Amino acid sequence: MKIAIMGYGTIGSGVAEVLRVNQDILQKKVGEPVELKYVLDIRDSIPEDNDKLINDFSIIKDDEEIKLVVETMGGIHPAYEFVKACLESGKHCVTSNKALVDACGSKLVAIAKEHNCNFYFEASVGGGIPVIRTIYHNYAGENLTEITGIMNGTTNYILTNMREKGADFDETLAEAQRLGYAERDPSSDIDGFDTSRKTAILLSMASGNRCRHEDIYTEGIRNISKLDFLYAGKLGMTIKLLGSVHQIEDQYFAYVVPMVIPKSDPLFSVDGVFNGIRIVGNCLGTTMLYGMGAGKLPTASAVVSDIIAAVRHQNEFQGIGWSEKMISIEPMSSNAFSYLIRVEGTYDDIVDDIKEFFLNEDSVLSPIVLDGRNDEFALVTDIMFEGDFMENVKEFEAKTGRRIFHFIRTKKDNSDDI
Amino acid sequence: MKIAIMGYGTIGSGVAEVLRVNQDILQKKVGEPVELKYVLDIRDSIPEDNDKLINDFSIIKDDEEIKLVVETMGGIHPAYEFVKACLESGKHCVTSNKALVDACGSKLVAIAKEHNCNFYFEASVGGGIPVIRTIYHNYAGENLTEITGIMNGTTNYILTNMREKGADFDETLAEAQRLGYAERDPSSDIDGFDTSRKTAILLSMASGNRCRHEDIYTEGIRNISKLDFLYAGKLGMTIKLLGSVHQIEDQYFAYVVPMVIPKSDPLFSVDGVFNGIRIVGNCLGTTMLYGMGAGKLPTASAVVSDIIAAVRHQNEFQGIGWSEKMISIEPMSSNAFSYLIRVEGTYDDIVDDIKEFFLNEDSVLSPIVLDGRNDEFALVTDIMFEGDFMENVKEFEAKTGRRIFHFIRTKKDNSDDI
Repeated sequence: MKIAIMGYGTIGSGVAEVLRVNQDILQKKVGEPVELKYVLDIRDSIPEDNDKLINDFSIIKDDEEIKLVVETMGGIHPAYEFVKACLESGKHCVTSNKALVDACGSKLVAIAKEHNCNFYFEASVGGGIPVIRTIYHNYAGENLTEITGIMNGTTNYILTNMREKGADFDETLAEAQRLGYAERDPSSDIDGFDTSRKTAILLSMASGNRCRHEDIYTEGIRNISKLDFLYAGKLGMTIKLLGSVHQIEDQYFAYVVPMVIPKSDPLFSVDGVFNGIRIVGNCLGTTMLYGMGAGKLPTASAVVSDIIAAVRHQNEFQGIGWSEKMISIEPMSSNAFSYLIRVEGTYDDIVDDIKEFFLNEDSVLSPIVLDGRNDEFALVTDIMFEGDFMENVKEFEAKTGRRIFHFIRTKKDNSDDI
Repeated sequence: MKIAIMGYGTIGSGVAEVLRVNQDILQKKVGEPVELKYVLDIRDSIPEDNDKLINDFSIIKDDEEIKLVVETMGGIHPAYEFVKACLESGKHCVTSNKALVDACGSKLVAIAKEHNCNFYFEASVGGGIPVIRTIYHNYAGENLTEITGIMNGTTNYILTNMREKGADFDETLAEAQRLGYAERDPSSDIDGFDTSRKTAILLSMASGNRCRHEDIYTEGIRNISKLDFLYAGKLGMTIKLLGSVHQIEDQYFAYVVPMVIPKSDPLFSVDGVFNGIRIVGNCLGTTMLYGMGAGKLPTASAVVSDIIAAVRHQNEFQGIGWSEKMISIEPMSSNAFSYLIRVEGTYDDIVDDIKEFFLNEDSVLSPIVLDGRNDEFALVTDIMFEGDFMENVKEFEAKTGRRIFHFIRTKKDNSDDI
């Protein structure tokens, strides 16, 4: 099969490298050679070191020899127009571009179906972690009640370093930037937007329908401090930025928030730039997929797995089960959590107030106090709906004159036992 | 699609349950109902509570309506004859039976190919962990240099309990038997044979060729003691029973042994009855798949994933890349490891002998001594070939008059850095 790559940045050049390095294995496994014919780079200048480089998309679209196109340009335009045109010409398309998949995935699947070719996007979530294909093949017969993942290596690297070094957010981010683990403008990672897009794709895969990542409540990690890690550590727990989706019959819940998780959660040990995605099915129980969620070659490897699938299904559309029906995500206030809250002052004289607003009748307050600090303490609330919690925080502060300095969500009511 | 289940034990009845509980999801995802028509139970008596129960295999073979047969009988005969006959009639076959897959898998794949139907066996390794399909789809373009897994829940439960409770092997096994986590005759699990069969299947998948589990060096966990865990704990490490395969060009290595592994290994945190399989690819890096490796519904869920694949590929053989070519596994002596060794006595007067037999020239002895024990100490050797190590143990014992009480392998030379 002759193919083209559109976009020759990190991932695109990685795909060319994987195809070159593993060409013998590939040919053996798929039964025919996969031959790279064009590399499209729409920047004006064409470096002279690659005789496959072109800068005119129509060459790819009009070349009937090209049966598959890899899109690694990033962004929505012109990626969408190029992929759409290729699919309409019956060319299989493979992408690593989560923005494209999030915004236009269901539509591109429908176009692929109409033209009896395939649109694949394994690399758009979790890099080398085989999560998309696992959901639509292996777990197609499961009622997937929950998918929760650490899906951003930059934030996981920062949080892991904060825990290990007892460092604060700003200095850890600065170090990550110096080492190249965080962008100079880190907002997309640390404010959770990257995770939010991936979470939207996972909810689409799990539900078989469309959703908007803009509707997913998203909080990043800027407000996580070393104090938070000290309290979590006292509980034997840690803090991770999680993207999470839950399905309960026809209700869909999704959010991206930092959460305090226990050692028993398989995501607890997913550290540094690694990603992990925990999937819970009604018959399956809990599984977790772990690996490099980003990086040139791991992501390129996922792109190549899609090329293989396209070669194996070159004459048929492979149903992915992604309709264009839009589902709505329940408001954040209808999710239930426990909360690790940090309260101003000492607890002795406000035990009754804490119980009134944050604990069930038969619960006992177990305050967490850090050595040498009298200005605040922490506790884990009982489970309550987020809407109620927010009200209770306000009322507690008004009644006691004490501030809640910070809260982080922890184990959620409607998730399975971990 | 109308299907039959052969064998109505734990897994077979689990498959019927998953098909019943998730029938709506299944029909939506695969586009047609999956209808259970027969359940074959070749025991003489047929319970009256299931109107689908039959005890004559020929009814299934001769019924043209039956397009797919699930084999969950276990053992090789008559499972092999039944599956072969079904494939020869063009019926897709799905099995959870690792003994059958290990002994006859490549042959049954060839028969399926000849009759344009499919033989699937996702449930034969790792239960609900999607390892088979991930290897033959997602990672088909990778040079898979290593696959190493915790693939037996019974032994992992025992080892986890030994570590957590500081208990010895015999008492922990007895408790596991009392709680139903270990069989009354536990040999197949604790002596590593179950893991060995699964390891052989993984080597077959990774290499695309046939191998014999009888050729895989296999050691169980009977000789692991609480002392071993104390020494491993001093190193911040733990002990797991691992099945491991390595490919270096045309050389194949495979073994099943207890190993001492560090916290940085994603398998470190796979505890209790859970399984985990770490896969290393040349471009992919390290991934790990985690989940319930056994149990009625998780295993049945994997069987159902194969049923879905068969419905989706009902008119074509799906290439699995498993030839009938037999590969040979290199002898255990050609593997290289470090070893955690427990040496009789104190170390002061034998430092030079230890360095001569177990450490490189520029290494320094770092003895591990347990509080209050003068009768033995431990150390981690430098990396050496197993053949050399065995010789060195003999020569060391002869020269010094000191015994090596026990050794456990640890990080292997030709594996990737973990």
